[in-house]
Amino acid sequence: MSVVTIERKVLEKNDELAAKNRELFQHHGAFVVNIVSSPGSGKTSILERTLEHLKDKLRIAVIEGDVQTDFDAQRVAKFDVPVVQIITNGGCHLDAKLVQDALGNIGLNGIQLLVIENVGNLVCPANYDLGEHIKVVVASTTEGDDKPLKYPTMFRNASALLINKIDLLPYVNCNLAELKTNALKINPNLEVFETSCTTNYGIAEWCHWLEKTSREYYK
Amino acid sequence: MSVVTIERKVLEKNDELAAKNRELFQHHGAFVVNIVSSPGSGKTSILERTLEHLKDKLRIAVIEGDVQTDFDAQRVAKFDVPVVQIITNGGCHLDAKLVQDALGNIGLNGIQLLVIENVGNLVCPANYDLGEHIKVVVASTTEGDDKPLKYPTMFRNASALLINKIDLLPYVNCNLAELKTNALKINPNLEVFETSCTTNYGIAEWCHWLEKTSREYYK
Repeated sequence: MSVVTIERKVLEKNDELAAKNRELFQHHGAFVVNIVSSPGSGKTSILERTLEHLKDKLRIAVIEGDVQTDFDAQRVAKFDVPVVQIITNGGCHLDAKLVQDALGNIGLNGIQLLVIENVGNLVCPANYDLGEHIKVVVASTTEGDDKPLKYPTMFRNASALLINKIDLLPYVNCNLAELKTNALKINPNLEVFETSCTTNYGIAEWCHWLEKTSREYYK
Repeated sequence: MSVVTIERKVLEKNDELAAKNRELFQHHGAFVVNIVSSPGSGKTSILERTLEHLKDKLRIAVIEGDVQTDFDAQRVAKFDVPVVQIITNGGCHLDAKLVQDALGNIGLNGIQLLVIENVGNLVCPANYDLGEHIKVVVASTTEGDDKPLKYPTMFRNASALLINKIDLLPYVNCNLAELKTNALKINPNLEVFETSCTTNYGIAEWCHWLEKTSREYYK
């Protein structure tokens, strides 16, 4: 039995569980977003700003994924929304089983938007369906403009791209037009937002789109 | 046969090949550094600055690892040193076999320093020995000060930490003292350097240490 076969079996098993998660989400009318990025691109900060904007408009719950620590869950808990931390203990991505287990600790009744923040990793999480409705990829200006070409799967599988830390553009070696061109070359259907969690630039536009997209899904 | 068993077998096989690579490096008197970080922390920029400083002092070769594209090898080739690009085609880390294959395309005769730039990923490369003598982890100030605690294995296995993009410190939410404390909590033996590839801050100190460390290894 080759390793490749095992890997395919792992992914097939994951897809089955992801389909079950998705059924459960549909049953509850919860729209589910899987946020992915490199470590330190600003996923948790984006989530904090999003909760500030949307928590009085939508009933939101959060699943946090990290290799170690529950720092991110602590940050999110301040917004008084249900949050569960998954610690992967060295694992490089969330999978559908981990999310299924976490769902046992979070009531989906009445939840309209569930945000899953994945482990900071621009490679592995791309291949694991969690049952989400959309993936959102965050790429910060400090990472440069070539990342969509170097890590294409993540950008190909995402519905939206948040170009974060836009306030740092004057100080870093990143051509914004080039970054967008590269991202749209990989995935012409990407919705692209420019954001800064420091200045709040673009947060309203992103939140407006997210609210609209989640509401329209169940219309 | 469980997936865990297969994974252990993969790692055991990797360790065997890594030991063979290491023997080959020893045979040629080449000191080998495995550079790891998140995507966009500045591994390639650090390498460019290092080549500027050391290429007339040490005979250097480079192996570049990327998920897609040979952009980094192109950047390095400008310094007129031997360079081979490994494209993992979706793979999230280099392994000893990929490095062994690359070594077939690079002559180690007379090489004193071989730098292997790993795939941008702060999780998976931590578990794969390539046969290197030391791992060096790059963490940029823009990623925040909590990364050593959230991705501990990489910091535990490294000999040196380069805190890069130090010039951006005034603009980002990163406490430098806290970042160092967190890194040294995980690994008290880390050599810590503060660097900027934009201003060249700290590059001389890092290169001095790297040269000294590679020369002393074969004394």
